[in-house]
Amino acid sequence: MAKLSVREKIVAAAAERFHALGYNACGVQEIVDAAGVPKGSFYNYFKAKELLAREVLNNYWAGAGLEILADKSIGPLERLRRHFQHIASRYKKFGFENGCLVPKFMHEVSDSTPLLRTDLRRQVARWTALIAEAIREGQTDRTISNSIDAETTARFLIESWGGVTGAMKLAASRAPIDDFFSVAFGTLLQPSVPASRQRKTRV
Amino acid sequence: MAKLSVREKIVAAAAERFHALGYNACGVQEIVDAAGVPKGSFYNYFKAKELLAREVLNNYWAGAGLEILADKSIGPLERLRRHFQHIASRYKKFGFENGCLVPKFMHEVSDSTPLLRTDLRRQVARWTALIAEAIREGQTDRTISNSIDAETTARFLIESWGGVTGAMKLAASRAPIDDFFSVAFGTLLQPSVPASRQRKTRV
Repeated sequence: MAKLSVREKIVAAAAERFHALGYNACGVQEIVDAAGVPKGSFYNYFKAKELLAREVLNNYWAGAGLEILADKSIGPLERLRRHFQHIASRYKKFGFENGCLVPKFMHEVSDSTPLLRTDLRRQVARWTALIAEAIREGQTDRTISNSIDAETTARFLIESWGGVTGAMKLAASRAPIDDFFSVAFGTLLQPSVPASRQRKTRV
Repeated sequence: MAKLSVREKIVAAAAERFHALGYNACGVQEIVDAAGVPKGSFYNYFKAKELLAREVLNNYWAGAGLEILADKSIGPLERLRRHFQHIASRYKKFGFENGCLVPKFMHEVSDSTPLLRTDLRRQVARWTALIAEAIREGQTDRTISNSIDAETTARFLIESWGGVTGAMKLAASRAPIDDFFSVAFGTLLQPSVPASRQRKTRV
């Protein structure tokens, strides 16, 4: 493995420590201790903890599989399923008891972290737009229920996912994610008449 | 207003500070400063921060309106709706930007807070059981969809509620709660044939 630069050490240590402790409880001292770098060097790279947190959050989003949602070569319902399965597989790797960085930060942002709040709002808005687009596409090809509103459902899926990951942390297991898949894909997005039967009817 | 005892001052200050900062970021010093009591007196009342957090959490649950869920004089669907409306009205009082203490703690519990984790698991299990019971009752009287599993849906409603409150904090508005009501009561729990029409059919 290539040797990490001081900057990379700080970012990697911060990702792990923010995940474990949350944003507010994890100070600069905690991060430089974990990174094994002197505290003075921190401020050569980041003017404030919030700017480091933005970079950690950006890296985290980069692995969230949003490109799966945008991949039109896959059917919309399958895209949605694969996207959420991809995120769930990341949690497995991190350990379910670590939860998810995004809702963790959501529960912590405030007036004193305006940059982090702005980033989170923009990232969540983009995620919502991609999910809503997949839902609308699925409603057009009748693989997704037409009795739901695409925008509201997209927002709700994301909102509920944040809670599912908190419950996953509390249970230290994948079970709450299974509940999400069961309700979202087994009920909420399901067309009232199965698509397979609709196709037969039209033949 | 009756003068608060030192103990009451500590509990009230901790409730406010845990809500604002989270469990990990809020130390004993922060709490005694907010309560205006000397740090030494803290340990006369609480052997550890975690024991104080348990008491704060218990008080918080006491106001969660679980008794509404158990009130069999109200129809099951209406009970569910009133219960969640009751919690939402509390958030309005606290300020939507403060989020909810329960999922906030969920995202923070770990091996180092075993008592808090045990309490949360027990409280959430009780909450789930009451919601599942209301759903089953609604399925029997056909005011709630029979195509959903009562236990899975009860767990999912609670899990998703935790995420909705994180989104509410991020947005500093009630909008995510409206998404929850729209999806939960407008789609998920809805019987596929409206109850009003079923009744007409049977007349």
